[in-house]
Amino acid sequence: MTSRINQSTLGQDVPQVNARAKVLGRAQYAGDLKVAGMLHGAVLRSPYPHARIVAIDTSAALALPGVKAVLTGADAPRVMWGVHHKERRILAEGVVRFAGEEVAAVAAASEEIARDALDHIQVEYEELPAILTPEEALDEEAPGVHPGRNNVSHEIRFERGDADAGFASADLVHEATYTTHAQYPGYLEPMATVAALEPNGRLVVWTSTQSVTQARLRLAAALEMPISRIRVHQATTGGGFGGKLVEDANNLIAGLLARKTGKPVRLVNNRLEDFLAAPSSVPERITLKLGMTRAGLIVAKEVRIVADCGAYSGLAAEVMHVSAMRSDNMHRNPNVRSHATLVYTHTPPHGAFRGFGGSQMLFALNSHIHTMAEQLGLDPVAIHKLNAIGAGETSIHGWQIGSTGLKECIDQAIDAIGWEAKRAAPKGTGARRRGVGMAAAMHVSGNRTIGNWDGSTVVVKVNEDGRVFIHSGEADMGQGAMTMLSQVVAHELDIPLDHTHVVPPDTDTSPIAIGSLASRVTIAGGNAAIVAARMARDKLLALAATQLERPVEQLECANGTVRVIADPERSCTLAMLARLHVWRHGGEGLQVSGSWDARTQMHDDQVYGNIAPAYSFAAQAVEVEVDTETGQVTVLDSFVSDDCGKALNPLAIHGQTNGATVQAIGWALYEQLQLEGGRMANGNFADYTMATSDAVPMLRGGIVESNDPNGPYGAKGASETAILPGAPAIANAVYDAIGVRIRDLPITPEKVLAGLRELQGARDA
Amino acid sequence: MTSRINQSTLGQDVPQVNARAKVLGRAQYAGDLKVAGMLHGAVLRSPYPHARIVAIDTSAALALPGVKAVLTGADAPRVMWGVHHKERRILAEGVVRFAGEEVAAVAAASEEIARDALDHIQVEYEELPAILTPEEALDEEAPGVHPGRNNVSHEIRFERGDADAGFASADLVHEATYTTHAQYPGYLEPMATVAALEPNGRLVVWTSTQSVTQARLRLAAALEMPISRIRVHQATTGGGFGGKLVEDANNLIAGLLARKTGKPVRLVNNRLEDFLAAPSSVPERITLKLGMTRAGLIVAKEVRIVADCGAYSGLAAEVMHVSAMRSDNMHRNPNVRSHATLVYTHTPPHGAFRGFGGSQMLFALNSHIHTMAEQLGLDPVAIHKLNAIGAGETSIHGWQIGSTGLKECIDQAIDAIGWEAKRAAPKGTGARRRGVGMAAAMHVSGNRTIGNWDGSTVVVKVNEDGRVFIHSGEADMGQGAMTMLSQVVAHELDIPLDHTHVVPPDTDTSPIAIGSLASRVTIAGGNAAIVAARMARDKLLALAATQLERPVEQLECANGTVRVIADPERSCTLAMLARLHVWRHGGEGLQVSGSWDARTQMHDDQVYGNIAPAYSFAAQAVEVEVDTETGQVTVLDSFVSDDCGKALNPLAIHGQTNGATVQAIGWALYEQLQLEGGRMANGNFADYTMATSDAVPMLRGGIVESNDPNGPYGAKGASETAILPGAPAIANAVYDAIGVRIRDLPITPEKVLAGLRELQGARDA
Repeated sequence: MTSRINQSTLGQDVPQVNARAKVLGRAQYAGDLKVAGMLHGAVLRSPYPHARIVAIDTSAALALPGVKAVLTGADAPRVMWGVHHKERRILAEGVVRFAGEEVAAVAAASEEIARDALDHIQVEYEELPAILTPEEALDEEAPGVHPGRNNVSHEIRFERGDADAGFASADLVHEATYTTHAQYPGYLEPMATVAALEPNGRLVVWTSTQSVTQARLRLAAALEMPISRIRVHQATTGGGFGGKLVEDANNLIAGLLARKTGKPVRLVNNRLEDFLAAPSSVPERITLKLGMTRAGLIVAKEVRIVADCGAYSGLAAEVMHVSAMRSDNMHRNPNVRSHATLVYTHTPPHGAFRGFGGSQMLFALNSHIHTMAEQLGLDPVAIHKLNAIGAGETSIHGWQIGSTGLKECIDQAIDAIGWEAKRAAPKGTGARRRGVGMAAAMHVSGNRTIGNWDGSTVVVKVNEDGRVFIHSGEADMGQGAMTMLSQVVAHELDIPLDHTHVVPPDTDTSPIAIGSLASRVTIAGGNAAIVAARMARDKLLALAATQLERPVEQLECANGTVRVIADPERSCTLAMLARLHVWRHGGEGLQVSGSWDARTQMHDDQVYGNIAPAYSFAAQAVEVEVDTETGQVTVLDSFVSDDCGKALNPLAIHGQTNGATVQAIGWALYEQLQLEGGRMANGNFADYTMATSDAVPMLRGGIVESNDPNGPYGAKGASETAILPGAPAIANAVYDAIGVRIRDLPITPEKVLAGLRELQGARDA
Repeated sequence: MTSRINQSTLGQDVPQVNARAKVLGRAQYAGDLKVAGMLHGAVLRSPYPHARIVAIDTSAALALPGVKAVLTGADAPRVMWGVHHKERRILAEGVVRFAGEEVAAVAAASEEIARDALDHIQVEYEELPAILTPEEALDEEAPGVHPGRNNVSHEIRFERGDADAGFASADLVHEATYTTHAQYPGYLEPMATVAALEPNGRLVVWTSTQSVTQARLRLAAALEMPISRIRVHQATTGGGFGGKLVEDANNLIAGLLARKTGKPVRLVNNRLEDFLAAPSSVPERITLKLGMTRAGLIVAKEVRIVADCGAYSGLAAEVMHVSAMRSDNMHRNPNVRSHATLVYTHTPPHGAFRGFGGSQMLFALNSHIHTMAEQLGLDPVAIHKLNAIGAGETSIHGWQIGSTGLKECIDQAIDAIGWEAKRAAPKGTGARRRGVGMAAAMHVSGNRTIGNWDGSTVVVKVNEDGRVFIHSGEADMGQGAMTMLSQVVAHELDIPLDHTHVVPPDTDTSPIAIGSLASRVTIAGGNAAIVAARMARDKLLALAATQLERPVEQLECANGTVRVIADPERSCTLAMLARLHVWRHGGEGLQVSGSWDARTQMHDDQVYGNIAPAYSFAAQAVEVEVDTETGQVTVLDSFVSDDCGKALNPLAIHGQTNGATVQAIGWALYEQLQLEGGRMANGNFADYTMATSDAVPMLRGGIVESNDPNGPYGAKGASETAILPGAPAIANAVYDAIGVRIRDLPITPEKVLAGLRELQGARDA
């Protein structure tokens, strides 16, 4: 009897299927592509945060040998592009609204010539007064950043329950204001596109993107072309973090240059350009008021947010919406009220960023809970657990919690860090003080916001060698979407992982897919892959039944064959069955399409509805050391626990979780976009100080498997949640160490020292 | 009320959908592709028809700057490749069997260096005696071209009815022997491939091919790779005519070079190489014996064929099979006997060619009928019509004739040429004599020979702009497959032709398809396109029913909308419906896959079976002028009538028919591969004299629409049949003009003059 060789890798540590190509330097990122006859693009950007373009003279640039085109706003489509608001031109016309806005674009025979040409474009600006802060923007006298409108881009108000009555019933009410800053996505690969015209005049782009479907939709709208006349290939993508969704103009400008010149055009941001062009996270000023009973039960919550979208709103309204309400669902909140205002300023646009608005509010909320816990003489862990929503419950906003491992995450994280002992221990002597902090978080896995579909389609083709092609439009931006799809299909058909091949997303050939956002790919793409793989399996079994002369119920897929369960020697290879599927009367290639859509609902105009098929949770505990002489904060230890439902590939989850932790440490302690007079002052990796290896301890993490009923094998979105608790855990640990509460991120040495001075002053008084 | 705007182009003259790209020089043929880091390949070929390779020294070639690899047989897989017989190495090892056989291959930084390197490869040959004719090959003493085998590559024998009894009952029995020669396919684009390795190590090739599916299968077998590790893209293909199916080694060598170097490799035949590498048509010596009644009824037919496949048999066995039996089905043949023998010689291989064996036998048969008609005092037209099989009948080999326009084709052609009057008229005076000739032909539309599937699959995607992508693996090699698919889908959905886009064949993304052969694409691909388009239409109508609040039966697709038949103002655009199909609960992209397979049967081992879903017919009449002083034959007029069932695109059919006529004129009068001592003596377009415009009259043609019950809208394969009657029509016209019967193609001036001398000798005697 043949021994069962189970090929499944589910739950095992699996190197990513495209890792080898990347490690060997063979993966083709958009900037690596070389197309015959290719021109090189470069973009001239406004040096002023606000100015009138009086005149542009491109003649000197055009006269440079090798320059093929110089485009200005006059050459770009008149239509505006944008997400909520169509308010942005591909190239500015008449006025520029932030320092860095795209004013002109060049295509030339080399990148050097293209950049030289930028210097020869004569732009006469009339500088105008710039609105650089939300406070200025909200001044009633302030002129509109956009003509004919005030500076409120978007406003959200909702109340559920009775917040005032809740506060009245509370034993403790605490209100404080927190400010968060913009973080640059910091992917290794800047935005890059190669755009070309097909022989039939269609526009084809290879680009670094989180969604080929959305990239095509936006290119079509912005360039005023039918979507069918555009083909978008996802090139290998070196990180996205929200920045490569729909908010940058890179592929629009490349497409415009290709269309104008009729030649392929490569447009790759250098790092400064990418700092200027990429949406950074939305800075929010959050006033949080929380009412609790003496026992720590939350009875009322009020949130006021003023968020800054910069000059163009992009996805910032959606981000702010998340800040305003997502964290309400983590606890059993009976009464909530939110008022959030998004304002325009003459600064580079902000928008989608890993965590999508969760980081901002969870910094406030987790800081707040620690503060109130101390006032109530409680452990903040106890408050989190007391209030934590449970599986099977429906949150205040209608979210149906199918699974939650929040309490387990908290326990795992605090146990790992030595919570109780270290909280009780002395904070150290001398200049260096140690403290521990924790924070809890939740996130969506999928989100019914785009159109009213939150599904995915996967096509599975079983080739005549028994190996399988998987077509999906869901983007792998490094997080492992391709590996996940391969694992699912290989598991369902019981074939080796390397017998699967995921064909990269291409709008001509891939099924429509929303793309990589809202931690949706594993749950939506994974479920669709299960549907498709099982359809393929059914076809294989049906065909095998005729060959093995046994009913389907007596057959199984095992180790690349279909065999009789009770008589495993009696089998057909998948290769043989796939060949038979084609090469017979009535045959056709074995190719099936499986779709899955979340059984969720779009939230209504009262912000009510179960928007995601599953919700992920995480908790983090850290230990920090604060140098009270220098103000320097060092993270000594970190343990983040991720409730991903089921870890399909723990290696990938730990990798993503570690990345999230580093990005959170950066946001909390080091990274801050510095604008001086509205101009980016630190748009490079030397001055914009992301956390480097010396700033990061050996990261630790754990996985909680809460087994979501809607997830593929129980899985939910993994590791995006893990970026959320980092900053408040660090802030809480700093407080634990030195008693200084910092509500204004990042936690710089200056703020630490100022806090210590203030504390000393209070003691001295 | 909206007026009905019917978008269908069926039956209209439509420029090919890819014509503009070709005319503007933008279409990318394989040789046009430039891939970054691409090397250039070149192939060293044997100068001897038969030799032992004593030694190969590649060191001097490898030492040339820019040379990256020099491969010989020792570097090629040990496995043999081929169709019926696996008998050929990618690069010869030990022995070469024809002058032109691939011995070594080079990859270098430029094509010039690669070709220089060929001169530096030192090959020591020991020349061996070569078998250059079938007669030598069949000598019992002859050594085998392939070791351990005699020189009979394949043999076919069958008898149906009682041929001897038939001949005994005949009033007239005539036997004669006809010889036909090899014709080079003569496409404008020689064979070309770019092969590269994907980052994950898969082999990807862009190649000029008639079938990506078959190219992949053969690459996989010859390079010993799983098919899933190979991706074949069809580059724009500049003609195939059977030559770009599975018989040349171009993409195998390119693939081998790419695999060995790890770099992209471009390998483009120059014209001489293409003459050596392409399969030319199979030369056959046909002895035909026909018995007729006094009234011209065919009562018995016996065929003996000796065919030459050259050194490797490729598809020659299938070609000879067609010669041996296909024409039996055109008439009501009661008794037939065939014996066909395919032999190896040390000459360049022969194989598939437009008409696929039909040209050879129909030259004999039509010549024969003219001869016997004269002997019986009948019009050959009358004999054809008397014997012509009718619709609804089953032929002697089991072919079920769903439709035939043969008689109408004959009438159309002879009427156009002025048959009766010109037959009766004086043949001219002086040196220039005129005559008319006609011939009739049949062909398959599809052929159940490969595996047991003769179907096709088409995927139709309706995009959110209401435009449609069509995925098919069927190859457009210039004949118009893409245009046909576009027409069918546009008709079914009633959208403009330019709202369709046919995605070029690609084994990773296209449905499996047999490819362009046996005039199968319109009937198989067209029917599959109907199935898929109607599936898409059903989905659109169902969705529209919910929007328009009418049952599906009351709706129709019209002019890019779905509308209420009785209230045409009430409508939804396809764009709106396609968007709704995705962006709703339970949505997915509107993408359907439709398959169609012929309801036919593989012929049994007695060569019996209805192998094709439809059979196409054609007839041609020509007028020639023979210069009796120079022997030169000039075609003055030609009318070919094509029974294509239904002309989906008459412009394309006339284009193809004209091409077929020119190729037939070339074969009949001008083209002949000249081997001298087994070596190609005229492998270039100066010496291999294809018919040029001065040799071709203003071609005329007509279409007969017999409306086949199995065809899409009645259509059958068009215009391949049209190559078949040309040569015998010309031979018959020459006979009519000067009384010289030439049975040995081509009809050269020398043969005409020799015939005239012989005639004069007979008269003088």
